[in-house]
Amino acid sequence: MNEVEVYKRQGFGHSSGFGDKPALLIIDFVVGFCDPNQYGGGNILDAVARTKVLLQAARKNKIPIAYTRLVYAPDGSDMGSFCLKVPGLEKFHEDSPAGQVAPDLTPQPGEYIVRKTQPSAFFGTGLVAWLLGKHVDTLIIAGATTSGCVRASVVDSMSYNFRTIVGSDCVGDRALGPHEANLFDMEKKYADLMTCDQIIALLSAT
Amino acid sequence: MNEVEVYKRQGFGHSSGFGDKPALLIIDFVVGFCDPNQYGGGNILDAVARTKVLLQAARKNKIPIAYTRLVYAPDGSDMGSFCLKVPGLEKFHEDSPAGQVAPDLTPQPGEYIVRKTQPSAFFGTGLVAWLLGKHVDTLIIAGATTSGCVRASVVDSMSYNFRTIVGSDCVGDRALGPHEANLFDMEKKYADLMTCDQIIALLSAT
Amino acid sequence: MNEVEVYKRQGFGHSSGFGDKPALLIIDFVVGFCDPNQYGGGNILDAVARTKVLLQAARKNKIPIAYTRLVYAPDGSDMGSFCLKVPGLEKFHEDSPAGQVAPDLTPQPGEYIVRKTQPSAFFGTGLVAWLLGKHVDTLIIAGATTSGCVRASVVDSMSYNFRTIVGSDCVGDRALGPHEANLFDMEKKYADLMTCDQIIALLSAT
Amino acid sequence: MNEVEVYKRQGFGHSSGFGDKPALLIIDFVVGFCDPNQYGGGNILDAVARTKVLLQAARKNKIPIAYTRLVYAPDGSDMGSFCLKVPGLEKFHEDSPAGQVAPDLTPQPGEYIVRKTQPSAFFGTGLVAWLLGKHVDTLIIAGATTSGCVRASVVDSMSYNFRTIVGSDCVGDRALGPHEANLFDMEKKYADLMTCDQIIALLSAT
Repeated sequence: MNEVEVYKRQGFGHSSGFGDKPALLIIDFVVGFCDPNQYGGGNILDAVARTKVLLQAARKNKIPIAYTRLVYAPDGSDMGSFCLKVPGLEKFHEDSPAGQVAPDLTPQPGEYIVRKTQPSAFFGTGLVAWLLGKHVDTLIIAGATTSGCVRASVVDSMSYNFRTIVGSDCVGDRALGPHEANLFDMEKKYADLMTCDQIIALLSAT
Repeated sequence: MNEVEVYKRQGFGHSSGFGDKPALLIIDFVVGFCDPNQYGGGNILDAVARTKVLLQAARKNKIPIAYTRLVYAPDGSDMGSFCLKVPGLEKFHEDSPAGQVAPDLTPQPGEYIVRKTQPSAFFGTGLVAWLLGKHVDTLIIAGATTSGCVRASVVDSMSYNFRTIVGSDCVGDRALGPHEANLFDMEKKYADLMTCDQIIALLSAT
Repeated sequence: MNEVEVYKRQGFGHSSGFGDKPALLIIDFVVGFCDPNQYGGGNILDAVARTKVLLQAARKNKIPIAYTRLVYAPDGSDMGSFCLKVPGLEKFHEDSPAGQVAPDLTPQPGEYIVRKTQPSAFFGTGLVAWLLGKHVDTLIIAGATTSGCVRASVVDSMSYNFRTIVGSDCVGDRALGPHEANLFDMEKKYADLMTCDQIIALLSAT
Repeated sequence: MNEVEVYKRQGFGHSSGFGDKPALLIIDFVVGFCDPNQYGGGNILDAVARTKVLLQAARKNKIPIAYTRLVYAPDGSDMGSFCLKVPGLEKFHEDSPAGQVAPDLTPQPGEYIVRKTQPSAFFGTGLVAWLLGKHVDTLIIAGATTSGCVRASVVDSMSYNFRTIVGSDCVGDRALGPHEANLFDMEKKYADLMTCDQIIALLSAT
């Protein structure tokens, strides 16, 4: 019996659905994660291009929009275990060119910027309170990397009981094996996978 | 260039080390996750056997020990998105035979039981406060499943700045593909992988 | 210039309002907090009587209802700093008569019981995820004590961006000075105060 | 029977003690909270003066030091319920003169700045992970206001199982009634009160 059959037989992979009040969360699509010579590569630029389309639809439908950036203090005061595993992350500062949101996705005034030092967009941030204040029930997630900060944020989103949608062509990773493996895990246990076009069709219908 | 080379070139996979005050966290090694006809299968029983050895060493060295169990209210009042994705999880109640810690690993008085409804052992639980009260700086993690609650707990453990150790032969999964894929992700970004024997050698040396 | 004038001049004490999706949270109205020989006294029994009326209206209007209880492990494994400041709290166990919800307010199936070990109903519990899953935007708070677990829960409720309503005659304390002082603080900074009757009028109107 | 006797008889007000690894947290001692024409007044300037002495001792003893500032986004994107209760708070931006740490307490490189939007220094911030990474077991708290952000942070500090020390002459408030009432509540349930001089004596002894 293969893996897919095991998961099916044990009852994994049902849909958690799409609610009435969606928001869009774009994770770590910053300059340094779009550059293969820094933390980019793989299918990340393709995912940015699809996310640009999704972002336009989100703005047109006036749903809440948030972005995450990695931001560490320049004096190293908030470095922790993550920077031990991946030395160099602590170079993302407030003003680092590498840490700015990708030019194709530049935030507009009133959209929310989450500064974070850990993988999940929710960890040590004001994100859940911001979503609560907007009465959001469904979180659409795009960004990078699928096997890193996207996965961590998806697990927390589901744990907070948001209906969680991963834009399957709006998330990217520097390596395709982990990208696929994490899409598999997320679909089976935490989120529904939908393409950019499928999500836009639902946004337009609400 | 293959995936391993991409991660190496971008600076992933360094060691976060082993501190002075370790604790052992055993995740969801309950009856229902040891039974292939419920949520078990794969290499889970092998991992339980190695964890039994690790647990004996942890007790001998008097380090803090915690266990997690999935526990939902019998009336369904605390069901959420996780039970939409995986209907049936909500059947783990306080008194369900399937939800009791595996007989080989029965907790002793004074060891801490974390009741949880979400993947991470930290989400909506008293775990981080308990670890703080014990002055723990290093969290050794065993349990099931590698691609589910272990992974989610490892990400949170690292995010709280614990030096995080995954017992590579003490974690198991119902399917080996996700098991291997998640060991890869965790080693590259969040935790050091060590075998049961390597961990015991370090515990005995402290 | 007296205190009230200072707060007024600096812009404190505006209303945060009442939203569209209220829930009721009843904090620590358990047997041991209703008994002056344990942790009760003051105006607590009066507040229980008003809360009984509020609870009936909440059920009639079918809004989500949650209760908190202090519950520690019988083996002392989850005692912490709170039990150092107030030795004896750790005697509230799952089955302790003193820890059961007051008979006048017995929960019905489907209402949510929050087990906690710290003052705030949100700390280390699943409460915020439960409220999110119910799409709640307004949290009505009753319970004991005004200067303890009510105050701590109100601060967290506001911090999560719930519009927070304190039932001014539905909260009680073992001593009236701290009761009044904490109503003052909460009204100025965190919550709107409304009587049981005022809340019921709003519930009936929604 | 007066209030003090009620608390004593019910077992409140024991000491939670002083551990081996203290840190100092200075809450909201920023320009706007030192100015009686903005959010200051009362005994705040006296508390700043004592905190200056405490800070010098903390630096001399090389314990970890953190400061909080209220920081909202200039476009209003992260305003929430707190800014409804106290309109004007949202004017504290990253670069606002009113939001900078008081000149007498200017942070040095390597000391940690917590940017927050809610009363507690722990809510939606990286503080607990930072303290964990420093192996802190005891949190000494100074700042303003006693009845607001100090109280909220003290409750969370205790809830995380830190031994919590309030510098009784290092915390201040715009009005003395709430200052005294909150010192009473904190001493009875959450923290030990010590003067600046008593704390310095303990720091020097460790």
